[in-house]
Amino acid sequence: MFEDFLKNQGSWLSGKGPESEIVFSSRIRLARNLSNLPFPLKATLKQKEEVLKQVKEAYACDKKLSKAQFIKLEDVDELDRQLLLERHLVSQEYVSSVKGKGLILSSDEEISIMINEEDHLRLQVLASGFDLKRSWSILNSIDDNLSRKLPFSFLPDLGFLTTCPTNVGTALRASCMMHLPALILTKRINKILELLTRISFTTRGLFGEGTQALGDFFQISNQVGLGLSEDELIENLIGVVNQVKGQEIDARETLLKKHKLSLEDNVWRALGTLKNARLINSKEALSHLSILSLGLDLGIIKDNDLSLSAPGRELLNRLFIILQPAHLQKIEDKPLSERQRDSIRATILRERLS
Amino acid sequence: MFEDFLKNQGSWLSGKGPESEIVFSSRIRLARNLSNLPFPLKATLKQKEEVLKQVKEAYACDKKLSKAQFIKLEDVDELDRQLLLERHLVSQEYVSSVKGKGLILSSDEEISIMINEEDHLRLQVLASGFDLKRSWSILNSIDDNLSRKLPFSFLPDLGFLTTCPTNVGTALRASCMMHLPALILTKRINKILELLTRISFTTRGLFGEGTQALGDFFQISNQVGLGLSEDELIENLIGVVNQVKGQEIDARETLLKKHKLSLEDNVWRALGTLKNARLINSKEALSHLSILSLGLDLGIIKDNDLSLSAPGRELLNRLFIILQPAHLQKIEDKPLSERQRDSIRATILRERLS
Repeated sequence: MFEDFLKNQGSWLSGKGPESEIVFSSRIRLARNLSNLPFPLKATLKQKEEVLKQVKEAYACDKKLSKAQFIKLEDVDELDRQLLLERHLVSQEYVSSVKGKGLILSSDEEISIMINEEDHLRLQVLASGFDLKRSWSILNSIDDNLSRKLPFSFLPDLGFLTTCPTNVGTALRASCMMHLPALILTKRINKILELLTRISFTTRGLFGEGTQALGDFFQISNQVGLGLSEDELIENLIGVVNQVKGQEIDARETLLKKHKLSLEDNVWRALGTLKNARLINSKEALSHLSILSLGLDLGIIKDNDLSLSAPGRELLNRLFIILQPAHLQKIEDKPLSERQRDSIRATILRERLS
Repeated sequence: MFEDFLKNQGSWLSGKGPESEIVFSSRIRLARNLSNLPFPLKATLKQKEEVLKQVKEAYACDKKLSKAQFIKLEDVDELDRQLLLERHLVSQEYVSSVKGKGLILSSDEEISIMINEEDHLRLQVLASGFDLKRSWSILNSIDDNLSRKLPFSFLPDLGFLTTCPTNVGTALRASCMMHLPALILTKRINKILELLTRISFTTRGLFGEGTQALGDFFQISNQVGLGLSEDELIENLIGVVNQVKGQEIDARETLLKKHKLSLEDNVWRALGTLKNARLINSKEALSHLSILSLGLDLGIIKDNDLSLSAPGRELLNRLFIILQPAHLQKIEDKPLSERQRDSIRATILRERLS
């Protein structure tokens, strides 16, 4: 399954979205539950299957969704589940067990719906670049269409009901994945993260809750979905992301003005290591790719220093994803030890970057 | 002065001596004093100048020495004194003050005589590779010729008299500079160094007493010059160097057999860094060059991975020397800050290695 994942890279990874140099991707997620069945946590397998059935019958009513795949998670083997996780299409909690779970996935990976994760439905739009309004308009329209066919739990005073009380209300979480290498290099990042927490935004690493900021990526999202409209929530996030983006741009200018030689040294060393290593783990590879991205953004290296086969930014985005463990095993079509992965990762980097 | 140092590299650096892969260079030094004048430590400036005068009148009696340059150290500016030090032709103590000091230096740098260092004369032969016997025969013949013209202090019971009592006797110190990267990588080096000390051999880093083992170089020398003949001292050192060499070869075989991929990773990463860095200090550069040398010795990289301009080993030996601070300033013909040196060092590496 998902053989296409190796050929294509998902539209959100194309690097073609608006302002995608610093705002890598935008994501909006809605939680919805059916009022005629218990939340997944309390549901029997039979009841979960009933949820699957109802959603399967309903989803084609939306034109965009009608071409999407409907997948039963128990038909997806472990490696492919890991692959979905590495592509940011599902959550860790979702893949931890398979019974009674389903996934609706558009071929460009922009739209996905997890069925019977924490809530009956978790609808997601994931787009390249800083593109929250268009993402919201897509998701809003899907939600409208589905709500005509499915009895979503909704109370006029509270809004949409969800398993976790923090999601009650709009049940909307919006986030942007930001690439902030200059804020890290100039050591300004911690102050900014603290400030964001104080004004009720959550920051996470590349793989959601509790993960480290691998590759200098930070996901910034709204913390509370209650008391504000969907449009207000999204506007607030846009405002905050714009401010952080301004800080990153400022830090990049500082680096160029005051530490150009050190920055060039960092960028070229990263390239030298990626082009020559014979063994490299994910974390190190991501960290060098991040500095290389920054070097591309700032014109320190040019596309043709990297590769003849693809524009540098697109290539790097692709590498960020395919160097992950499940992707490597999918490419090699067999289980691999950590050391084998480190070796194959290094080989792919040498092939793609020279 | 010493403009030639930038064009030529001294025969001892040619990498053409016997077994020079592991035994980088061989050195023999003799201490001699004139019986009619006090040791330099106790001598007045006038008496030191008398030593200079006597040696200057005498040295051309030796055919090999007759073409050598006679230099008064006070005519050598500070940068050039540093250059002599970096070329292993003089000692730190010698260049710390200039009055009343002289230097006799052959154009290929193989023969040098410090005048009024700790002793009146310190005669040195420095040769490429594992070449102690030929070196001793050259030095012995120079010593014989000079002793016919100069009244060397000698007591039949004690041998040659020297300022420092540990040198009394043959007043001979022989040493080999060994390149032992595999013993370091396999962590076997400390045991070997301990053993050498226990059997009365001294080990030092690249720049003599008290210096660190930069670039995985270790100098092994005899500790005591008393109680054995010159030939015995040299035979003993040859025996020990052969044993250490055997250990290094064994460690290299272990690396190739058991850790080939890690070793290749180390070697190629070193090359990647050297080819791409924009700022690099001496210590880091030497450490990468050392691994690169090992890679060349073991066939992991080939000459044409490194450069089209010179055989790899010769190029690396040359880089080991010219990347040092005084050499860089001589090349640029001006004083340089540490950061400027780091930048120029990186530029030279990129030019020479790609």
